[in-house]
Amino acid sequence: MRATTIHGARDIRVDEVPDPTLRRPTDAIVRVTAGCICGSDLWPYRGENPIRPGATIGHECIGVVEEIGSEVRDVRVGDFVVVPFCHCDNTCPHCLNGAQSVCTNLGFTASGQAEYALVNQADGSLVSTGGVPDADLVPSVLALSDVMPTGWHAAVSAGVKPGDTVVVVGDGAVGLSGVLAASVMGAERIIAMSRHEPRQAVARSFGATHVVSARGDDAVAEVRDLTDGVGVDATLECVGTNDAMTTAIEVTRPGGGVGFVGAPHGVELSARRLFDKNVGVRGGMAPVRRYLPELLPMVLDRRIDPGQVFDLTLPLEESPDGYRAMDERRAIKVLLQP
Amino acid sequence: MRATTIHGARDIRVDEVPDPTLRRPTDAIVRVTAGCICGSDLWPYRGENPIRPGATIGHECIGVVEEIGSEVRDVRVGDFVVVPFCHCDNTCPHCLNGAQSVCTNLGFTASGQAEYALVNQADGSLVSTGGVPDADLVPSVLALSDVMPTGWHAAVSAGVKPGDTVVVVGDGAVGLSGVLAASVMGAERIIAMSRHEPRQAVARSFGATHVVSARGDDAVAEVRDLTDGVGVDATLECVGTNDAMTTAIEVTRPGGGVGFVGAPHGVELSARRLFDKNVGVRGGMAPVRRYLPELLPMVLDRRIDPGQVFDLTLPLEESPDGYRAMDERRAIKVLLQP
Repeated sequence: MRATTIHGARDIRVDEVPDPTLRRPTDAIVRVTAGCICGSDLWPYRGENPIRPGATIGHECIGVVEEIGSEVRDVRVGDFVVVPFCHCDNTCPHCLNGAQSVCTNLGFTASGQAEYALVNQADGSLVSTGGVPDADLVPSVLALSDVMPTGWHAAVSAGVKPGDTVVVVGDGAVGLSGVLAASVMGAERIIAMSRHEPRQAVARSFGATHVVSARGDDAVAEVRDLTDGVGVDATLECVGTNDAMTTAIEVTRPGGGVGFVGAPHGVELSARRLFDKNVGVRGGMAPVRRYLPELLPMVLDRRIDPGQVFDLTLPLEESPDGYRAMDERRAIKVLLQP
Repeated sequence: MRATTIHGARDIRVDEVPDPTLRRPTDAIVRVTAGCICGSDLWPYRGENPIRPGATIGHECIGVVEEIGSEVRDVRVGDFVVVPFCHCDNTCPHCLNGAQSVCTNLGFTASGQAEYALVNQADGSLVSTGGVPDADLVPSVLALSDVMPTGWHAAVSAGVKPGDTVVVVGDGAVGLSGVLAASVMGAERIIAMSRHEPRQAVARSFGATHVVSARGDDAVAEVRDLTDGVGVDATLECVGTNDAMTTAIEVTRPGGGVGFVGAPHGVELSARRLFDKNVGVRGGMAPVRRYLPELLPMVLDRRIDPGQVFDLTLPLEESPDGYRAMDERRAIKVLLQP
């Protein structure tokens, strides 16, 4: 099959690789109808994560079930499905407790930017859309494989409640999805931190009531001004850097919470600072499967439109251009069509 | 007045010092009828916190209001009161949000191990017991000035719910109070980490269903065994060291929470580890005033007996002996009678 592969820092190619095959009786193969590039794919792209040269890359996709293992009971060949980037059995103690991203049978999509993807634990992971989605819904359904549930997880982890004032640090697709999540959860004021006009526009469309374009101490000061010196109830940290985390903790009011979903790269958490402010910190990989029963109907009923984060669509063969566009911040998020 | 003072590491004395006087119209002076030594007093005692030689020490006490400032409205001379170790106006945005320990008019009891104590923000801070408590209730009422609400805050911060399995790291008076808090909140299984028999006995009396005497990796392994490899729903970290925090995070199940109330000394929080486990961390100084309306009736109605943490009562003049006894772990917590 044709698949996006990574060979080194800034060396993305579309190669011919072997088709994935069923390895376990609980597996399924999905024919990808739409995949996309994640902000976290930029870590290896930029050489900041280890790379196995020639490996396929991409963990977000949707498509049609092509083949199932002998023990798959609920998913059927021909189903149109959302493929959560993290696969789970949805029956282990962690899954039953809502921590599907720490499932004892955890797996990951490894070829979401390709023609086919192997899914472990098909019954636990895949959620059928009940038919092929209308073309205009495709970006929003695709957003459910990672970015929207991840923004949602940030809001859940931060403890967003109706009436809250919320800051979202990070204007990537996850941060923007966090704005949408906070809005759906009833936040009254949502302050998006963003310096990029196209992203500010999406943030406002998703429910941001304020935009702060400053960074660091200046951003903290602006949020303090906006909240009469109090700080905000909940903050979504959607970057994964130490600066972003520091800003998130500083803008949060005493007793408030920070939800973080950017994979931490060099993040130092000061226990003393958290103690002094009584600010809680919680986060991690999103348990996508947990949130899909709530989020999928919102998308299918057109109540939310998380697909707005996609501002560039390319054929799979142009995947390397997609990486460049995202790396240079010319695109928020790139949808790839195999 | 007679007051406990600190002059250097392991140099505690009872000296004659000036009586405290009203400084602001919102202040009150309380005649201390019972005070006590806190585990956190051992940090300066052991030379691990900075010391101002000759300073009074002690932040936990109860007693009778002796004098009030001109703007004090609710508290009256003669009231028998619980004195929260942290004083608050109970009207600022942080107090109204339940973060009284980060009040914009925050103050602290500075001479709780003495004859008199100055209280800032008397109306916001002090809670009347409605008369002099029966002698047998004195230890439990005294426990409400810090140690019991601090254990309670650990349980609140960890998110303890009915039916939960809970670990309490630390068998000092705060940890034991945390056991009692988790029990009141309906935890089904409470695992107390303790190697000291008298403390294990109090823990069991407070509701601990299991005692783990191992430490570090062995303790983590024991908790895993007790929970079929899953970990616990909520963990109370009541020590403040890096080892205690590491143990707390490791025994907590994915999606669970750690509440920490030991003032952090050299605690490093790994954002990556929290991310990988989806474990939340929240804590800080207890907003004592917030919890008193709930806890005081439980004590006065004899539904809880947090005073069991006091296993040694000394006259104020023998305060230095009390420090030695706690430092050498011969006493859990020492009550001082002026």
